[in-house]
Amino acid sequence: MMNRQVLLVSRPKAEATLDNFKLVETPLAPLNDGELRVRNHYLSLDPYMRGRMSEAKSYAPPQSLNEVMIGGTVGEVIESRHAKFKIGDKVVGMLGWQEIGTSDGTGLYTVDASHVPLSAYLGAVGMPGVTAWYGLNRIIEPKAGETIAVSAASGAVGSVLGQLAKAAGCRAIGIAGGEDKCRYVVETLGFDACVDYKAGKLYDDLKAAAPEGIDGYFENVGGEVLNAVLPRMNAHGRMAMCGMIAGYDGEVVPMQGASLLVRSRLKMQGFIVAEHMEVWPQALKELGERVASKKLHFRESIADGLENAPEAFLGLLRGKNFGKQLVKLI
Amino acid sequence: MMNRQVLLVSRPKAEATLDNFKLVETPLAPLNDGELRVRNHYLSLDPYMRGRMSEAKSYAPPQSLNEVMIGGTVGEVIESRHAKFKIGDKVVGMLGWQEIGTSDGTGLYTVDASHVPLSAYLGAVGMPGVTAWYGLNRIIEPKAGETIAVSAASGAVGSVLGQLAKAAGCRAIGIAGGEDKCRYVVETLGFDACVDYKAGKLYDDLKAAAPEGIDGYFENVGGEVLNAVLPRMNAHGRMAMCGMIAGYDGEVVPMQGASLLVRSRLKMQGFIVAEHMEVWPQALKELGERVASKKLHFRESIADGLENAPEAFLGLLRGKNFGKQLVKLI
Repeated sequence: MMNRQVLLVSRPKAEATLDNFKLVETPLAPLNDGELRVRNHYLSLDPYMRGRMSEAKSYAPPQSLNEVMIGGTVGEVIESRHAKFKIGDKVVGMLGWQEIGTSDGTGLYTVDASHVPLSAYLGAVGMPGVTAWYGLNRIIEPKAGETIAVSAASGAVGSVLGQLAKAAGCRAIGIAGGEDKCRYVVETLGFDACVDYKAGKLYDDLKAAAPEGIDGYFENVGGEVLNAVLPRMNAHGRMAMCGMIAGYDGEVVPMQGASLLVRSRLKMQGFIVAEHMEVWPQALKELGERVASKKLHFRESIADGLENAPEAFLGLLRGKNFGKQLVKLI
Repeated sequence: MMNRQVLLVSRPKAEATLDNFKLVETPLAPLNDGELRVRNHYLSLDPYMRGRMSEAKSYAPPQSLNEVMIGGTVGEVIESRHAKFKIGDKVVGMLGWQEIGTSDGTGLYTVDASHVPLSAYLGAVGMPGVTAWYGLNRIIEPKAGETIAVSAASGAVGSVLGQLAKAAGCRAIGIAGGEDKCRYVVETLGFDACVDYKAGKLYDDLKAAAPEGIDGYFENVGGEVLNAVLPRMNAHGRMAMCGMIAGYDGEVVPMQGASLLVRSRLKMQGFIVAEHMEVWPQALKELGERVASKKLHFRESIADGLENAPEAFLGLLRGKNFGKQLVKLI
């Protein structure tokens, strides 16, 4: 039986390109005792992957060359010699950019797909959702009546963040690229306002959308967006720093106005949700209940087939996706 | 009886200049019931005053034009119609750039000058000392064995910060301008190392002084110093942001590498110690005991006479002072 996989075969010099990836077919070895085999239905594409493609110092070791790209997956157990997993189990894990994953069970967990769609475990009820939950509840710590803003507001993290902020009694302001995304953020997700950064007057539009300033901000983008938001932060504002897509391709976007950190007594805090596993059970429970009861909306951008994963990933880095970027495998 | 005062008569366009200030003689009105009069012995000069000279948005309203410049003072009560103060009391307060202050007692407190020199209440046992105490204990939260760095290390805040870090079992690294200051920081204050930013290779020298990286940083300067420190921060590093002298004159020094906030999961937090009055009693007690028992060293740069306050202040902004900048009044 053959497996299809996408390998990282070279590191980007500046922007990531299709040449950095290679699709290969690999025969599957027989399963060992204690292993299981998963048919991956969906692969998650996430901005952090760009960081792993480089050798620069980061929070995780770089992705090794000529190995399967790392990535979150959901799928179904198709063969098992593992005591805790049986055929037919739906499982979430980090099985990478491949159609069939073989695992000793490390990091895999079974999920109930009867009330929550399987793909949501890669988005609103998965790592992106928990990322929003942690940034909001543990760093921003919103108080009812405050104004909370988020960049990449139509995306997997931003969409959850704004909806949770609304549920906490806050005013939610999104920043997104393009009229379509902004309309979705306000009309479907229920944000109070959304600013289109592509309109070219982000600072002014942000001021109009949040005339009393911003108390909490969740950063998914960095660069010019951050520079527009920073001067709009109110005294004692809290900024949860995540993503920073604008810097993933290696270009340097200096932050203007660092002295505002003192003048406005701001807190900026970077975090990686994988380092805070203690919140996952609580966060996933809340997020799962909200999705099951239709209180938490999400949207997916689904590429079809593993062979299209590299192109979809490059699109994600350029903001071409609309909602959580997934690849439908088999 | 005449009083001498320094007024702010114009706002700086870019750098502050002597023209912004004016020395005047003003007759003293008779004291009203509930008032007291203080002969100020020392005036404190501090970087925050530069911020107040401008009209830009800040944590405090700007200093009004044609009024006495704000500033911390220590002195002696020479006349009193106030129930809580008597002639001869030594008092600390914000009586401004003037030889004789008249007050209704608001914000004034009496101090014991028998074990701690009076001037120290403007430095190590005053606002600068509490600033260091707060940044270290409430934001950096040092653990024994960590490496803590501070800019303007020979100054009123930095010198206290490094000595408290040493007392907490940390390795203390100073950044200061010039060989003399660096020698003082290591030999007299007991820091483990001090890097001379004027030597022109700050990043490399910092790497050599703290080869295992920096866990906590107290920022007094901003600008290029911050840009050299940021990439040297270890994962989960904490940065207490204060001062930012480099930006006070209005020039913009962009912060490079904001994406490091995420990659290294850093916390950067600005603060103003006047907003945390709850820590002052504990901090002042600890600092006073350390000064009285000669465990906490400090150094003063003393200008002689109110007429020299403006020049001494401009020197402070350019790092010409060596230790806490004071003006000896009368």
